[in-house]
Amino acid sequence: MKAEIIAVGTEILLGQIVNSNASFLARQFADLGIDSLNQQVVGDNPERLEAAIQLAAGRAELVVLIGGLGPTADDISKQVLAHHLGVDLAYDEPARVKLAAYAKQQQKEMTPNNWVQAQLPAGAMPLTNTVGLAVGAVAKGATQQYVLLPGPPKEFQPMVLSALVPYLAAEIGHAPVLESRVLRFFGIGESALVTALQDLIAEQTNPTIATYIKDWEVTLRITAKAADHEAALALIAPMEAMIQKRVGAYFYGYGDDDSLAQEVVKALAAKQITLTAAESLTAGAFQSALGEIAGVSEWFKGGFVTYSNQTKAAFLGLDEAQIDADGAVSEATAKAMAAGALQQTQAGIAVSFTGIAGPGPSEGQPAGTVWIGLAQAGQAPTATLYHFPGSRQDVRGRAVKAGLFAVLRDLQNK
Amino acid sequence: MKAEIIAVGTEILLGQIVNSNASFLARQFADLGIDSLNQQVVGDNPERLEAAIQLAAGRAELVVLIGGLGPTADDISKQVLAHHLGVDLAYDEPARVKLAAYAKQQQKEMTPNNWVQAQLPAGAMPLTNTVGLAVGAVAKGATQQYVLLPGPPKEFQPMVLSALVPYLAAEIGHAPVLESRVLRFFGIGESALVTALQDLIAEQTNPTIATYIKDWEVTLRITAKAADHEAALALIAPMEAMIQKRVGAYFYGYGDDDSLAQEVVKALAAKQITLTAAESLTAGAFQSALGEIAGVSEWFKGGFVTYSNQTKAAFLGLDEAQIDADGAVSEATAKAMAAGALQQTQAGIAVSFTGIAGPGPSEGQPAGTVWIGLAQAGQAPTATLYHFPGSRQDVRGRAVKAGLFAVLRDLQNK
Repeated sequence: MKAEIIAVGTEILLGQIVNSNASFLARQFADLGIDSLNQQVVGDNPERLEAAIQLAAGRAELVVLIGGLGPTADDISKQVLAHHLGVDLAYDEPARVKLAAYAKQQQKEMTPNNWVQAQLPAGAMPLTNTVGLAVGAVAKGATQQYVLLPGPPKEFQPMVLSALVPYLAAEIGHAPVLESRVLRFFGIGESALVTALQDLIAEQTNPTIATYIKDWEVTLRITAKAADHEAALALIAPMEAMIQKRVGAYFYGYGDDDSLAQEVVKALAAKQITLTAAESLTAGAFQSALGEIAGVSEWFKGGFVTYSNQTKAAFLGLDEAQIDADGAVSEATAKAMAAGALQQTQAGIAVSFTGIAGPGPSEGQPAGTVWIGLAQAGQAPTATLYHFPGSRQDVRGRAVKAGLFAVLRDLQNK
Repeated sequence: MKAEIIAVGTEILLGQIVNSNASFLARQFADLGIDSLNQQVVGDNPERLEAAIQLAAGRAELVVLIGGLGPTADDISKQVLAHHLGVDLAYDEPARVKLAAYAKQQQKEMTPNNWVQAQLPAGAMPLTNTVGLAVGAVAKGATQQYVLLPGPPKEFQPMVLSALVPYLAAEIGHAPVLESRVLRFFGIGESALVTALQDLIAEQTNPTIATYIKDWEVTLRITAKAADHEAALALIAPMEAMIQKRVGAYFYGYGDDDSLAQEVVKALAAKQITLTAAESLTAGAFQSALGEIAGVSEWFKGGFVTYSNQTKAAFLGLDEAQIDADGAVSEATAKAMAAGALQQTQAGIAVSFTGIAGPGPSEGQPAGTVWIGLAQAGQAPTATLYHFPGSRQDVRGRAVKAGLFAVLRDLQNK
């Protein structure tokens, strides 16, 4: 099966947003063994969208429109596709009920455009939107199938993963099975990882190896094609073993949806240990990363943001004169912050962050200088020095990940 | 002038990389007033690339190929464009000298493909690569101009900014000036905002209005075309005034790079007021958002993450029995948390967050139930109830923004 993605939206043509949806969907197609030879981007213009659909339908069996399902007048994908198919729009009843309930709950006057969100080209199969209101669809034409997906990534990604991919997998059920395993690494750059795996990457055929970087991490995907699930896994296992042997020191978990915070919370639960933090540099970002994980409240009860020497002293029971003497960004202060947070909360383990976020140096130290401290009951606190490259956002983001990784390794070694 | 971007690379079609280059270049085109009505992505395949160039040349005067200039066998953009133009490849002498020096320095055996990096379609104007080895080009066809740009963003972006944009600006020197103003809103949905501006949007010609949503905010761009800068601004001003009159209650700032946190820090500085926070639900995300802003340390000294009733009591000086009686997610507890944080830190203003992030209800309240408290010296604390839709990430993200917006409005009214 050949597929063609058409991203619809003038905001993409103006460069206001990056077309990350196309990339996300393309990866799913690759995993399913669906070929994709062209992609298009077109604005919120009926004639040009119609032309794009015509072009795609001439060279692909599966034509996917992303975006243009919302409630505003420039959301036209549904209407143009219905016109292309020569059908009317018709309500998807569950989506209509959901929209009506939303309107009632929000005490909101609904415009006609608002209601279109619950409509589909007549005869199409709905794709449920678990996050938002605009329903997606699969519509069958004479020889082509057409898919409508919402543009906001938060709605788009769940619809792709939970509705479209299972549908397509069933459609192409006779095709060879494609199995992927995603390995997540922290603390090694992409080029260093690729260099370590150079011969494996050069010789790859089946399974294939692809690396990509996101949010200061490197992710590696091993993909095998085989007659069935078990045969594909049997191809993946020895490849993973070779990779782990070389770069396992930086490995922390599996899967696109995994995260360092997720792994830390799992490890805290496994070891029945509570965690606290005292954050200067990161100003709450470490604790907030933990807060993203449902169920964390059993292992994380609270912590401190100590941005000034005064709050470091007041909240953590430190001596302000001593902080002044040691320097706010120093090994001694990182250790004292962690020990103080542990003392104040009686948690099992405490992490501290102090550093220079930038831009520019501070207290005679360059931007990117970061100390991360660790304290736990019955042990002397420790602190590790990092030098992170990049912007203020990079330094803070990398520090949070480094703190999570340090806690994870510590818990795994217990 | 109409431009069409063709990103060349099988890795984009496989979803291994996001096509961020197209977005970057599209924004430059928008700023230059160059229209862009379509974009394409095509793999490293000569026939399909030739077809993509044909298609683009039929509907745009400027056809830009990004990627495929490197030294490997699947880098074919230069060759296919030369074939399309009916010319040979010829060396750009400075690029050849640079490549030869590189080969010598690296003691590297150069393949024929390697040398192609220093070649251009004969007669084309070189675009210097200040970072890498592959030279870019502008080639003139019968009625179209064609541009070759390298794919790696760290080579692509400097070439666009330092070579292509100045060239195009000179080319279209006679073209009208395009001026944009970006207005940022919080607390109103995109559809409500569009409904409020329905007639303005329906009648738009010059200036035009475009809305988009990102990170739980709505952004609106007013774009005017005129003979010069001042004339364009004179078109924008009355349109902005009409928009502000209708939805100004939700407006908070200007520009793509602005943020609520940025505006809060500006307002704190303007009023010389310090801020603290006590976060349950948001677990540090509010304070971390402030920490993103350089220079915030003068107005934000620290705060608390109080995820359990016990830490609410211990850190903020509250009565744990009273929290149990009121409920952790309640108006009384939100007020007490804000008042406690103010008391502990002697800041000028304190914000508190308590709520149900989800998934699923808790303590008999549905996910999305959020109380945000505000306390300041000499005033009784207040608290506001919100019901946020969406996932755990949505609820926490919206709560952070709502807290920032509440503080901003409070500071602006002082």
